Amino acid sequence: MMKKGIFISIEGMDGAGKSTQINLMKKFLEGQGFTVRLTREPGGTNISEKIREIILDKNNGEMEATTEALLYSASRAQHVKEFIEPALHRGEVVLCDRFEDSSIAYQAGGRALGYEAIKAINHFATGGLEPDLTIFFDISPETSLKRINSSQADRLEQEKLDFHRRVYETYIDLAEKNPLRIRIIKADRNIQEIRQDIEKLLIKLLNEI
Amino acid sequence: MMKKGIFISIEGMDGAGKSTQINLMKKFLEGQGFTVRLTREPGGTNISEKIREIILDKNNGEMEATTEALLYSASRAQHVKEFIEPALHRGEVVLCDRFEDSSIAYQAGGRALGYEAIKAINHFATGGLEPDLTIFFDISPETSLKRINSSQADRLEQEKLDFHRRVYETYIDLAEKNPLRIRIIKADRNIQEIRQDIEKLLIKLLNEI
Repeated sequence: MMKKGIFISIEGMDGAGKSTQINLMKKFLEGQGFTVRLTREPGGTNISEKIREIILDKNNGEMEATTEALLYSASRAQHVKEFIEPALHRGEVVLCDRFEDSSIAYQAGGRALGYEAIKAINHFATGGLEPDLTIFFDISPETSLKRINSSQADRLEQEKLDFHRRVYETYIDLAEKNPLRIRIIKADRNIQEIRQDIEKLLIKLLNEI
Repeated sequence: MMKKGIFISIEGMDGAGKSTQINLMKKFLEGQGFTVRLTREPGGTNISEKIREIILDKNNGEMEATTEALLYSASRAQHVKEFIEPALHRGEVVLCDRFEDSSIAYQAGGRALGYEAIKAINHFATGGLEPDLTIFFDISPETSLKRINSSQADRLEQEKLDFHRRVYETYIDLAEKNPLRIRIIKADRNIQEIRQDIEKLLIKLLNEI
């Protein structure tokens, strides 16, 4: 029988403090005896990282929204087959910084490309793989924009506040439609408070499987 | 009122002699007074050429079929919006070496990813744009493989004969299903014979519009 790992995605606007908590989650889960793989999207494999470079390159300002959406999906297709699924089959925990919900939030929501089209492309890319748990780091679009140092902002981070508001609203909508999978963490608090809430979610998840 | 150009795609297996005839087509159409834009897929814009590099790089042998299909579509999305549609709106003739039919033949057929999935992804990429005329250069998969110098073959050209046979059969199937758009040219003949047949197709097209 094939061993089955645990797939957890972490979602939210840039500047929400995901990175800090992802490292704390890794330590916590390793303390529970799991082998934990940290990864991120777009990226996570050699080919996916090459695609990431094209997506985030500030010199590619002429990129069409449809092109961007297809590149994210291409990167994800490779990541799922080459990295995530093999790790899950080995019984490991995969902690993934952004996954399909980011494409829904940013491309279907932010870029207004439509939920059905983006969902279909991503289903082709993932083969239907979904996280066992998704933690959404909830900060307002205004806070997100303030926290991004604009001098270091990549192409997507330079988008305007209206775009960020559509992204945020789409995330909230996704969370409401997937209440069992997507858990909202209020991220505008101190690190230890957020950490404690996340560990409660992780303990609950470990007890369920 | 917006001027409308002419969009012609050229399809077929590698080694079918497309390049020679595309240049002859360009001269013929320029002789008829048209502004002609030669382009190719994957490629045709800066972003599309960067995607092309990832697709055809022999070092990316671990690329999944789904990743490949999505990258071709991403490249096409950019090419359509940034290059092909603006040229058509200016009333120019676009001669495109490979277009959507290549994705159907190679990814849906050769890679066995399924017609419906590849068609849906490409419809998202092209917004439904179709060539006014597609010329399919018909050589057998065996001849195609023989003509490809294996030392210079890129990643896709190294695929086996079975793959090339599935590609060929899918092309023939597409031509049978789209008899008005796709015209088959027997390409295992001398350059002048092929040229004459193509010019007859072009004259017919110009008389229809």
